[in-house]
Amino acid sequence: MLTLYDNLESGNGHKVRLLLSLLGTEYQLIEKDIHTGETRTPEFLAMNPNGRIPLLVLADGRHLPESNAILSYLAEGTAWMPDDRFERAQVLSWMFFEQYNHEPNVAVARFWCHHLELTPERLAALEAKREQGRKALQVMELQLSYSDWLVGSQPSIADIALYSYTSVADEGGYDLAAYPGIKHWLARMESLSGFIPMVPFDAL
Amino acid sequence: MLTLYDNLESGNGHKVRLLLSLLGTEYQLIEKDIHTGETRTPEFLAMNPNGRIPLLVLADGRHLPESNAILSYLAEGTAWMPDDRFERAQVLSWMFFEQYNHEPNVAVARFWCHHLELTPERLAALEAKREQGRKALQVMELQLSYSDWLVGSQPSIADIALYSYTSVADEGGYDLAAYPGIKHWLARMESLSGFIPMVPFDAL
Repeated sequence: MLTLYDNLESGNGHKVRLLLSLLGTEYQLIEKDIHTGETRTPEFLAMNPNGRIPLLVLADGRHLPESNAILSYLAEGTAWMPDDRFERAQVLSWMFFEQYNHEPNVAVARFWCHHLELTPERLAALEAKREQGRKALQVMELQLSYSDWLVGSQPSIADIALYSYTSVADEGGYDLAAYPGIKHWLARMESLSGFIPMVPFDAL
Repeated sequence: MLTLYDNLESGNGHKVRLLLSLLGTEYQLIEKDIHTGETRTPEFLAMNPNGRIPLLVLADGRHLPESNAILSYLAEGTAWMPDDRFERAQVLSWMFFEQYNHEPNVAVARFWCHHLELTPERLAALEAKREQGRKALQVMELQLSYSDWLVGSQPSIADIALYSYTSVADEGGYDLAAYPGIKHWLARMESLSGFIPMVPFDAL
């Protein structure tokens, strides 16, 4: 059976749990507290030298870090990764965009709002992050204003990769009312059979 | 023929030019000045709403942004992307690590050193970036201290994705003398048939 090291607060982790749920794949979940150094122990670093969750462990003991690489691994041969070579590259393109332009702004703003003291310097940095995050959301909005899914005519791991933190963007101070294409796309994602939501902060 | 919109200063662009050279693939290069807004014109934004190079244009006119997605597209069916499912996922894992942990620190430090006024505030932020960049280099060093290549027994696009900015890390204030595994790996990359180096800043 697959084992997933994860933290329920993490959108990067939620991406993987969401795909596993949509696929109906059983797995063992091992929670790690990212705030008390549980991903920086010698034992964990031996599995992932980068000290981060999510981390997938295959039945034979091999380890795979990086949420979007895990999605790619799990989606191979399923409808969640297109067959067409160009569409596969487009899926990866959105996933790299997610890690470079979206997550460091949309996810990190949410983290700061909940875990860091918002000093005046931090507030200025937060507003700069939000400005970059709004640009990333606008790039998504442009695509989703004229297509139901980010790539091709059906949902893919590109949609999953971008769903998790977008769905809780308000927890980082973003107002999604300005992005009607995104709001309709979130609802489409939430109507998929097997969908599971992000865990709200106040339920953790 | 393929067309590549690029800027010769960019390591993200160099990755793509390096793979095209290693594959012996002909292409048309169109340079864009990232400092004068040439990637933010309406014409360019119509091709890539994220306003960034490199951007690959196929012979039929379709566009593909994101350096590592372009590498994945070009490497399909070649020796630069492994056949094995788990090794392919490991390659992607290193490439997501590159965009999240390495590029924003190693590449951005180089950019700041050459293009921004280093005020006291900026210098403090630069030192914080270097600290994160050293952590990323240490993760690479750990792998490269016991294997010749990042994944499996031969070079892949994971090596290409991490080569470009690592090879000019000194231009951002990093000292690679502390990473002997990385230094030997850089030399292995540079001995590959068809290798082309990053263009040094003073040659641009």
